[in-house]
Amino acid sequence: MTGDPSARPRSVEEHAALVARMLEPLSEEPAEESVPLDHALGRVTAEEVRSQVDLPLFRNSQMDGYAVRSADVHEVPVALEVTGDIPAGHTTPVSLVAGTALRIMTGAPVPTGADTIVPVEDTELVLGRDDDLSGAIVEIRRSRRRGEYVRERGSDVRRGDVLVPARTRLAPRHLAALAAAGVESVTVRARLRVGILTSGTELIATGTPGFGQVYDANGIALAALVQEAGATVSVRASSDDDPAAFERILDDALRTSDLIITSGGISRGAYEVVREVLHPRGADVTTVAMQPGGPQATAVVGGVPVFAFPGNPVSTQVSFVVFLRDPLRAAAGLPGIPPREVTLREPVRSIPGRRQFLRGVLDGAGAAVSPASGPSSHLVAGMAKADVLIDLPEEAETLEAGSPVTVWTL
Amino acid sequence: MTGDPSARPRSVEEHAALVARMLEPLSEEPAEESVPLDHALGRVTAEEVRSQVDLPLFRNSQMDGYAVRSADVHEVPVALEVTGDIPAGHTTPVSLVAGTALRIMTGAPVPTGADTIVPVEDTELVLGRDDDLSGAIVEIRRSRRRGEYVRERGSDVRRGDVLVPARTRLAPRHLAALAAAGVESVTVRARLRVGILTSGTELIATGTPGFGQVYDANGIALAALVQEAGATVSVRASSDDDPAAFERILDDALRTSDLIITSGGISRGAYEVVREVLHPRGADVTTVAMQPGGPQATAVVGGVPVFAFPGNPVSTQVSFVVFLRDPLRAAAGLPGIPPREVTLREPVRSIPGRRQFLRGVLDGAGAAVSPASGPSSHLVAGMAKADVLIDLPEEAETLEAGSPVTVWTL
Repeated sequence: MTGDPSARPRSVEEHAALVARMLEPLSEEPAEESVPLDHALGRVTAEEVRSQVDLPLFRNSQMDGYAVRSADVHEVPVALEVTGDIPAGHTTPVSLVAGTALRIMTGAPVPTGADTIVPVEDTELVLGRDDDLSGAIVEIRRSRRRGEYVRERGSDVRRGDVLVPARTRLAPRHLAALAAAGVESVTVRARLRVGILTSGTELIATGTPGFGQVYDANGIALAALVQEAGATVSVRASSDDDPAAFERILDDALRTSDLIITSGGISRGAYEVVREVLHPRGADVTTVAMQPGGPQATAVVGGVPVFAFPGNPVSTQVSFVVFLRDPLRAAAGLPGIPPREVTLREPVRSIPGRRQFLRGVLDGAGAAVSPASGPSSHLVAGMAKADVLIDLPEEAETLEAGSPVTVWTL
Repeated sequence: MTGDPSARPRSVEEHAALVARMLEPLSEEPAEESVPLDHALGRVTAEEVRSQVDLPLFRNSQMDGYAVRSADVHEVPVALEVTGDIPAGHTTPVSLVAGTALRIMTGAPVPTGADTIVPVEDTELVLGRDDDLSGAIVEIRRSRRRGEYVRERGSDVRRGDVLVPARTRLAPRHLAALAAAGVESVTVRARLRVGILTSGTELIATGTPGFGQVYDANGIALAALVQEAGATVSVRASSDDDPAAFERILDDALRTSDLIITSGGISRGAYEVVREVLHPRGADVTTVAMQPGGPQATAVVGGVPVFAFPGNPVSTQVSFVVFLRDPLRAAAGLPGIPPREVTLREPVRSIPGRRQFLRGVLDGAGAAVSPASGPSSHLVAGMAKADVLIDLPEEAETLEAGSPVTVWTL
């Protein structure tokens, strides 16, 4: 066991680097899976997708109008015989006879021999009717250049071109392009399967708490945080403070998870079930110089990284945001959420020697922040009011109103 | 039929206002549903949620340590008899005898008679062992003020206080607070059920396109856009250009949808199936002074709003973003995505008399934009490369590099 808890506390940066390193293999060689396009919204491409076809697939009309030879409409007005009709979806190739016109709809294939589309607005049927073109004559009233309103095959994308690069989070516009090119499924990064284990004899899931009991808030918070970071929850379970009980849910989670997060049971008291079980399995149990979130442990059990957070609900959430959120997002192919600098609206006190993460509320414009609740790690409802964590440096004792301060978006 | 297509084109603002008005009833009196907390991530609360309990539920210890009377630890060091142990989850109330200490774990109920917790770090067992406290004596080495490390009942939230306000998009921290207060389900806005109908004889969903056929890109694009805007897809169907076929899928969609979006079939050509079906049902078929996206129609059929977009894939997507995205988000209780101003990196030409929405790519910092592809509405792969729509005013002919320009985030 490294990381004797009585040793000098580890810095947040050191512990964050350790956690990130443990997740690097999952990030650098992510698992992949193929999903149908209908289920690909928000997923991240594992590789670039190249088009197997030209887009447009064929030379087609950009307008409802008449397909003509540009040479025949140099001088206008000119009356041309309408020799037929090409609706969109017309599946038989058609040829245009010089000196005549073919009515054509947007998207319909341009007939052989035609090189220009005259929009319907620039024409009038002088003989015949829209719904009966037999013997019809159209008057062309505006000249159009050769190629005008003709969409050439491949003018959007050529076969072999990249439609969507690797590591793209698929948005509606990407799905549209893939669908247009006939792509039916796409290879994306598999979502990491995260096991979530909470511990504590005092925890109950539902019902009326007896004396000394509390509702478990960490299971649902971690599950939601994991999903927001692009991963999926493989198993969510809770145990009391009996090591055998915790060991059972841990072993179960190890079978189905790429990584495991635990909350509770790792501080210096008695009945520290997570520490008791993970310690013999080589855990690094440590104290990080931060508040909330000081007691932390990591382990690799059977090849699966395990991250053990302290059990106070605010400590659990802060630990996730500070240590796991960005590494999990990286593994999912999502961009990190970097901390940023804003202005402190009111003075705050901090604890020298520990980096403090206060809960903060941004003002309307997002450029200034005020504390949202007290610093205590049990203030779970106070945390619900917050937009950000206010990150007070280890050495800070007090910060004046107007000071620049780093915040982490929640 | 209002909105004669030959009349002066309608402005984007006018048409947007009309669409927004049609959705106002759905936004102002949204349907509600109750969902279990486990399925509430990202949902929007329909009403405020008040706590039915005090949080903490009971007076408990903030630290692993010893529960004492502050009066007994005024002078330190002092040796106190350890009369028992209070683990978290201890379900029997305990009293402290003056002049003694009880070992206590974080979160465990503070015994009657105790008013202070001394953290374990400030103590040493001088007799007895951690795992056998019979006859143990603890030496207290640091004095603590009355109330220190005691979390009072209700110090986070009092019964009746608001845990989560109405119209909150539920994030992990909200779910944690709700779970901590024993809330098992929450009343959220029901997702609007949107029917998506695409039309066109030329469209195929899968397989190899025959001559003149193309893959449908609009169904999946609209489905994804609708989901991103907080709504759900009730039905997605496609018809050829036979009015009876379109009428069938429309009537089917009307039964299960709060609103319907169609693409294609509303311009001035022949075989305009959506126009042919909606016109007799009182549709407002119009031309909006924009490119792409000019032909637009709206209708209310059997009380259900119908929004008919043109069928070119870029036109469909631009129409959704410009007209429907923010009204749908408002109905979902989500904030709008307002256009913003950036700097144009290269000169662009526009079409006087029509507001043009070019596809654009932002530079790294997001403060400048370049066109991503040509202006043509068939460039579906070009649109996949874009981050934003560049919004060129109706009167613009050319804009110089360096000009301020409005962009809509995709």
